[in-house]
Amino acid sequence: MVQYDYHTKIYYKDIDQMGVVYYARYFEYFEQARTELLNGLGIILTDIEDEGFFLPVVSATCDYKKGARFEDEIIVRTMIKDLPRARMKIEYEVYRKKDNQLLVTGYTIHGFIDKEGKPKRPPKALVEKLSSAITG
Amino acid sequence: MVQYDYHTKIYYKDIDQMGVVYYARYFEYFEQARTELLNGLGIILTDIEDEGFFLPVVSATCDYKKGARFEDEIIVRTMIKDLPRARMKIEYEVYRKKDNQLLVTGYTIHGFIDKEGKPKRPPKALVEKLSSAITG
Amino acid sequence: MVQYDYHTKIYYKDIDQMGVVYYARYFEYFEQARTELLNGLGIILTDIEDEGFFLPVVSATCDYKKGARFEDEIIVRTMIKDLPRARMKIEYEVYRKKDNQLLVTGYTIHGFIDKEGKPKRPPKALVEKLSSAITG
Amino acid sequence: MVQYDYHTKIYYKDIDQMGVVYYARYFEYFEQARTELLNGLGIILTDIEDEGFFLPVVSATCDYKKGARFEDEIIVRTMIKDLPRARMKIEYEVYRKKDNQLLVTGYTIHGFIDKEGKPKRPPKALVEKLSSAITG
Repeated sequence: MVQYDYHTKIYYKDIDQMGVVYYARYFEYFEQARTELLNGLGIILTDIEDEGFFLPVVSATCDYKKGARFEDEIIVRTMIKDLPRARMKIEYEVYRKKDNQLLVTGYTIHGFIDKEGKPKRPPKALVEKLSSAITG
Repeated sequence: MVQYDYHTKIYYKDIDQMGVVYYARYFEYFEQARTELLNGLGIILTDIEDEGFFLPVVSATCDYKKGARFEDEIIVRTMIKDLPRARMKIEYEVYRKKDNQLLVTGYTIHGFIDKEGKPKRPPKALVEKLSSAITG
Repeated sequence: MVQYDYHTKIYYKDIDQMGVVYYARYFEYFEQARTELLNGLGIILTDIEDEGFFLPVVSATCDYKKGARFEDEIIVRTMIKDLPRARMKIEYEVYRKKDNQLLVTGYTIHGFIDKEGKPKRPPKALVEKLSSAITG
Repeated sequence: MVQYDYHTKIYYKDIDQMGVVYYARYFEYFEQARTELLNGLGIILTDIEDEGFFLPVVSATCDYKKGARFEDEIIVRTMIKDLPRARMKIEYEVYRKKDNQLLVTGYTIHGFIDKEGKPKRPPKALVEKLSSAITG
């Protein structure tokens, strides 16, 4: 398993009139977190796109236990448990930093396509770097 | 079943560099669509909140088949199949208007809480209006 | 002058914990409104981009008088007063529908560039259609 | 003058189909940056709101020179030059980190109101902390 803890903070732009983060925003935090997990392994998505690979989300789920509030610091624990084949699954757990309270869990499933939208195998460099990180 | 077709259009703000709607935005369309479904039944969420009820999302899922593009008109078919008890499930199907292509499906599950976050029964007016719409 | 009244509605996604629309969202409404003004004149931005023209914002301003609230209907009055040369200025006034209260005013200034970011003259079709609308 | 350099990074959620940050997003970065400037001086906005003060934006402007791209790191230089009286002005300069290229400049002007929206003097603690930072 590869695991990465992405730290971020809640700003006004994300808070709704219930005083908690609007539900769709967590999917943005998920995206930031998985980008950093991959960056941390030396996988730069801009390079992957320049090589003609895109990783669209084909499925996304989020379960909400407790809401984060304005100026809360949160940790998005991000995990890839299995090597990608046709699909890649990434899992997330969001914690409030100050008391380690679990707020949200979720996952995204990604496909691999080319610029025209046709399915491709996952890019070699990504598989290799993930492989050594997962098994290493 | 209650069903409502919410019509909207895709603008630049929602499109990413793949040229399609960013995945998290569909959850915003879902919210707009369910608000209109409820408004159409005479259920105004502002009134419900003034009475001390909030309907936070406790779970949200979206499956992506095809991406909507800039200036596409879309239809968000929104369905409530069962009367809410402790939870209310709302289902969505997003179609591209010009060719009726199904783009996305998803659902949200909502709880009922008071201002302090404690669980409540669903508000009577909401149950009654949904009830006559579903069974009627 | 060309003028267009774009009607839209405020949803939860746009409301912050002050209970009013988050300030940056008005720039999204501006974008929706100017897209519709242009669409109404037969100017489709997707076509313009396919011909290699892009209209990036080079300056944007918004003055806030009163906040729109959840489920408010608003009207974004959108105006082009002068024919575009190197730049195109679009002005906006946002009204709350139920009482015609002026909420916000603003403007955006747009350049014309090609895909590589080099300045271009405004596309002929756009100038012609705006010209007959402004002077007509 | 108080100055603070807020570091952040560009993710997919912010990029439009021109391949650059959507124009409205910079106002979100401005908000993140000014929150951190104030936090750095020991001014926590959540506390200020708990004391009944709100700082709505009354005017916002942004000038765009060059677009930030996906995975760019940016620095939002944030400056308060004058002590707030009825209004507080905050200025911003956004730089691309890797080559120090200036991308965007802008400012926001904030009022001080209570929960009912009535104008108030700026909160004492804020004025004192800003005062010693600006003149100190």
